[in-house]
Amino acid sequence: MAITVSLTRIYSFSAAHRLNSETLDERKNIEVYDKCNNPQGHGHNYKIELTVTGRPDPDTGMIISRTLLDKKVKSLLHKLNYKHLDNEVSYFKDKISSGENIVQYLWDQLDTHIGGKMLYHLKLWETNNNSFELGR
Amino acid sequence: MAITVSLTRIYSFSAAHRLNSETLDERKNIEVYDKCNNPQGHGHNYKIELTVTGRPDPDTGMIISRTLLDKKVKSLLHKLNYKHLDNEVSYFKDKISSGENIVQYLWDQLDTHIGGKMLYHLKLWETNNNSFELGR
Amino acid sequence: MAITVSLTRIYSFSAAHRLNSETLDERKNIEVYDKCNNPQGHGHNYKIELTVTGRPDPDTGMIISRTLLDKKVKSLLHKLNYKHLDNEVSYFKDKISSGENIVQYLWDQLDTHIGGKMLYHLKLWETNNNSFELGR
Amino acid sequence: MAITVSLTRIYSFSAAHRLNSETLDERKNIEVYDKCNNPQGHGHNYKIELTVTGRPDPDTGMIISRTLLDKKVKSLLHKLNYKHLDNEVSYFKDKISSGENIVQYLWDQLDTHIGGKMLYHLKLWETNNNSFELGR
Amino acid sequence: MAITVSLTRIYSFSAAHRLNSETLDERKNIEVYDKCNNPQGHGHNYKIELTVTGRPDPDTGMIISRTLLDKKVKSLLHKLNYKHLDNEVSYFKDKISSGENIVQYLWDQLDTHIGGKMLYHLKLWETNNNSFELGR
Amino acid sequence: MAITVSLTRIYSFSAAHRLNSETLDERKNIEVYDKCNNPQGHGHNYKIELTVTGRPDPDTGMIISRTLLDKKVKSLLHKLNYKHLDNEVSYFKDKISSGENIVQYLWDQLDTHIGGKMLYHLKLWETNNNSFELGR
Repeated sequence: MAITVSLTRIYSFSAAHRLNSETLDERKNIEVYDKCNNPQGHGHNYKIELTVTGRPDPDTGMIISRTLLDKKVKSLLHKLNYKHLDNEVSYFKDKISSGENIVQYLWDQLDTHIGGKMLYHLKLWETNNNSFELGR
Repeated sequence: MAITVSLTRIYSFSAAHRLNSETLDERKNIEVYDKCNNPQGHGHNYKIELTVTGRPDPDTGMIISRTLLDKKVKSLLHKLNYKHLDNEVSYFKDKISSGENIVQYLWDQLDTHIGGKMLYHLKLWETNNNSFELGR
Repeated sequence: MAITVSLTRIYSFSAAHRLNSETLDERKNIEVYDKCNNPQGHGHNYKIELTVTGRPDPDTGMIISRTLLDKKVKSLLHKLNYKHLDNEVSYFKDKISSGENIVQYLWDQLDTHIGGKMLYHLKLWETNNNSFELGR
Repeated sequence: MAITVSLTRIYSFSAAHRLNSETLDERKNIEVYDKCNNPQGHGHNYKIELTVTGRPDPDTGMIISRTLLDKKVKSLLHKLNYKHLDNEVSYFKDKISSGENIVQYLWDQLDTHIGGKMLYHLKLWETNNNSFELGR
Repeated sequence: MAITVSLTRIYSFSAAHRLNSETLDERKNIEVYDKCNNPQGHGHNYKIELTVTGRPDPDTGMIISRTLLDKKVKSLLHKLNYKHLDNEVSYFKDKISSGENIVQYLWDQLDTHIGGKMLYHLKLWETNNNSFELGR
Repeated sequence: MAITVSLTRIYSFSAAHRLNSETLDERKNIEVYDKCNNPQGHGHNYKIELTVTGRPDPDTGMIISRTLLDKKVKSLLHKLNYKHLDNEVSYFKDKISSGENIVQYLWDQLDTHIGGKMLYHLKLWETNNNSFELGR
């Protein structure tokens, strides 16, 4: 009897962004976001750990085709890679590009794209000391 | 009152293997496993993160003796280290040595060996960008 | 509708300690703790992964202010950093400074300090191959 | 007799930038810089490995005061951290902010600031797979 | 005046191999290579750090086109990736596939392919604790 | 014709120490060493990268036997591992256990033990952000 196993693959992208809330005044924005509020923006190398879960297919010994998974994730990351998140990704036009919101954006997009029921966990590293997670 | 704590230790082994399913024809095997289907085999440095959980013993402050744990895990890994998994480990004679199946093999073996109820989680890294997990 | 997201931040401190149980005799202490029982003590670079969870504040897009979180954690770690745990931290005067107990100490202290309900998970690395975890 | 020893310390900063050369036309810029030419910019977590060399002071056992070194380097990095390099750092107003030029900028600035003769080597990581070096 | 800067890029490949010398008898082979002499072979995730050096081109700010460099290195690694080195790479038919010889093989091949004078240093990691280097 | 290749192997040890100079008064010691001057000591996980260089032996394809090298290095590190450097290693009785001096101690000891002419470079990591080097 096969049991449920998880597969985690790691992806990355580089992007610029700025943290600034339209519902807060200038002084409050600086207080909350500090250097991340710099109007000219700044950037990060983001890293993603994506986990899918399921029972290995007895014929292949695998939960999901790596080729298929990579294709779907890379096609999503292509929209973010080497971009300015706030200016070039419509989702962040009126939503702050905080790590919390970026990981939620990725989750929503991927949930649609990989047949949902298998996407199990998503971790986004903004720097080596800072990460954001979402899971079932 | 003591609470439940987890201890994770990291181990590693190097091995060769080949992904090839006897229930699939040659063309399908290449499609599913791509370069991993290369008949001559290839290899990896595998890394294992093993987690046991329990209440610390009030006398020692520890869940489990590290010496005991290391001894059991290393005696298991000795069977895989610097081996060809498909040719030298009987479990993989008729089971594909995918990451999913290797982590399940380790779980089954360790479950027997460390008194089961404490083994909590097992993560197997095949490369730096690829890992497999199993847990309670 | 906002969903629950986790934020993990990484901190570190360096400290000396010795593992020795007063309820065990000398021979048993050496058997249990091996080289960690060395009377002169030894030391580690400890690393902490602290996870808080919650719904992002719609105004800031963030679960918690990083400045506030850092301030609380760093003020706690200040008591441990570049210290001898057994001799200088009162909690370990009559409790063994095993990884299991250190992570529990941190949890108890932080639970009090960050409004408890958001602290979700704590992982303490003693070496690169050894970690201890506690969570809800 | 004391011998020459090197000390390396690691620092980091996050910044946005865009690669675009005014001496090349639009088509050539895209060909040369590819996605790094995106007009909205992108960003990275940069990491610096700074090496100074010298004979340890017999009184302190150290080549240089870490406090002094940190103060000088951090005051320099403060000008880059969470900034848009091309728009906010005058050096890059008419110089492309390639890794090659950023490491040279850091070298020039630090050479002036740490008494030159001891600065020995500088390595700038743009991503985990990309670094730039300069040394005596 | 432009100065000489180095660029290092990191690549990886996975392969199987076996260490066995035809000039040594069986007993001596086991003594020298230990578990690496296992007749069925074993494998590794190899990592390469390749360094080129030169003066940045004033028009591009770069020593060498990353696209060009990647293309040349990846076309070489394609011959090794997911292969059995001894059985599938002619260079190792009569040469032991030790780390020392693999790094020399890569150097020779790349020296021919990237216009030699710029290739400066090559580091091959066989495991996380083992690396081999060659440079000018 | 064989060329010179370098082999680097990584080792580690954990130890306690205190930075305090007998030629400086109390106030100056605190100024120079800051938290590292704490009388109760503190500790680190030290990591060593040891590089030997030479021409690969045509019979084995290797510069030096890994078994032999490991044996010599580990027998040296055994004297430091899980020890208090200042109290238990005679070399540091009247020499400050700064990273600079520890790497010199290791160099002197190893120079004697591995036939000197092949030891090429030694790097000691005190923390993830701090390292010390010595080489020919």
